[in-house]
Amino acid sequence: MQIAAFKSATGEGLGVVVGEHIAVMHEGIEGSSETALQKLIDGGESALSEWASKSATAKQVSLSDVTLLPPVVSRRAAIICVGKNYHAHAREFFGSGFDSTGKDEIPTEAVIFGKMGSSLVGHGENINASLDPTNTVDYEGELAIIIGKEAHKVAREDAFNFIFGYTVCNDVTSRELQKRHNQWLLGKSLDSFCPLGPWIVTKEEVGDITKQTLTTTVNGEERQCASIADLIFDIPGLIETLSATMTLQPGDIIATGTPAGVGIGHKPPKYLAPGDRVEVTVTGIGTLANSVI
Amino acid sequence: MQIAAFKSATGEGLGVVVGEHIAVMHEGIEGSSETALQKLIDGGESALSEWASKSATAKQVSLSDVTLLPPVVSRRAAIICVGKNYHAHAREFFGSGFDSTGKDEIPTEAVIFGKMGSSLVGHGENINASLDPTNTVDYEGELAIIIGKEAHKVAREDAFNFIFGYTVCNDVTSRELQKRHNQWLLGKSLDSFCPLGPWIVTKEEVGDITKQTLTTTVNGEERQCASIADLIFDIPGLIETLSATMTLQPGDIIATGTPAGVGIGHKPPKYLAPGDRVEVTVTGIGTLANSVI
Repeated sequence: MQIAAFKSATGEGLGVVVGEHIAVMHEGIEGSSETALQKLIDGGESALSEWASKSATAKQVSLSDVTLLPPVVSRRAAIICVGKNYHAHAREFFGSGFDSTGKDEIPTEAVIFGKMGSSLVGHGENINASLDPTNTVDYEGELAIIIGKEAHKVAREDAFNFIFGYTVCNDVTSRELQKRHNQWLLGKSLDSFCPLGPWIVTKEEVGDITKQTLTTTVNGEERQCASIADLIFDIPGLIETLSATMTLQPGDIIATGTPAGVGIGHKPPKYLAPGDRVEVTVTGIGTLANSVI
Repeated sequence: MQIAAFKSATGEGLGVVVGEHIAVMHEGIEGSSETALQKLIDGGESALSEWASKSATAKQVSLSDVTLLPPVVSRRAAIICVGKNYHAHAREFFGSGFDSTGKDEIPTEAVIFGKMGSSLVGHGENINASLDPTNTVDYEGELAIIIGKEAHKVAREDAFNFIFGYTVCNDVTSRELQKRHNQWLLGKSLDSFCPLGPWIVTKEEVGDITKQTLTTTVNGEERQCASIADLIFDIPGLIETLSATMTLQPGDIIATGTPAGVGIGHKPPKYLAPGDRVEVTVTGIGTLANSVI
């Protein structure tokens, strides 16, 4: 099932994507799609079954008539992110001059940082590069996990039981601010620097996530292409590591890291500029497209 | 005005602290104190005036009959934190062997990181040190700012207009996890590692925040004592820097950094152990006390 949050002329909604339409399962005031998504995730398999049957006869709106919202349970919640989590990217970042993480080309422990929820935008919204006074805006296409159940001290063999679904993230970054402030929160949290979407696809529908491929294009030119199987710290390992000390909550988002081919991996760096269009595709999930202003 | 969030036998509440009592201004279900606090902050000066007059005749509960909650608008929202923001602490941390921020003893730009909201606990709740497999749990007493108005591109001379009030934070940290994962989110976000409270004091009541003193004791022994005036990046500067690229939202929390005297500033390090009691006091605000289990 593909679950989309959207804004229409009359308010916000949450529904099931069917071809070029959304079967509307919830409509309400601003912010209410977040509560509705939380309820769906908390409801587990029975809520999903109910949605599956009810969506067949629900009112439909055309995808082209609505604005997609980031599919999140809270616009205030931070996104948990993983740095340097594909081998080739870890090497390119280490060699770029922007890596403040120290001595190791390939990290021996997962590099975990956060991105403020205030940076979230949906599919189709603009990335406001003009906010970066250093003009070093870079894309990072990523697979994101949506947590489905409270997760505390989860063993890696049980990890997939705690996943609700997947979406696509563009971990847009100001390279100069990332480096300048040493810890990454600020360089990663400029307003509009966390495009997320276009929707959530449930884990049952995606099947084996390691068989999927991530591709990022800028103005149609392929920049990143990698198999999800190439993650250094894989999805079960990330859930095990994070939940060992912190309780992950239903709706929490983990952006799993970006593969090689980011702007600063090129010489000279290929930064984003106004007018550019970035598209991140994960097979089995969808394409997250955003224009740069 | 001192504003406390609390849990009682019948639910959650928000009210005004008057001596040993709370004048109850809101009562409701779990989570409703967060919405009530958001409404108060969003309501600005007129909401505060209304609270001031109504609290005089409101029902009272004894502070000893309730459990204080972290005074936040969302338990999911990350706390924005500043690292190495007092000169003497920046030096002690740099010399401790745990500083992954690189070459500079005194940072030339603010070190900004996040702490997950899932780590929040209130005054009187326990810090669960047993979650840290490395047994390197350390305290960091800090002054925290509560943002009062949406803040975007705020000049330092206007910064205080965007503050609602202040509270006290203990930025509890696993030193080994902080170092091991390089970026600090994980070592700073173990469950219960963000005591916050005991309440918010409005900026009008605190007056000149730079005249206040922060003290941390462990089992009654003074470990940290510093003037808020000693911040390397001061409060107006932090709000200017953060809001330059991200929009701060009413209720957002900024923990401004810890002074010298943390556990790893001692040789050998004085880590926290079960049975310890940590008290962080900021004059004009109050004392945040938590026991370690």
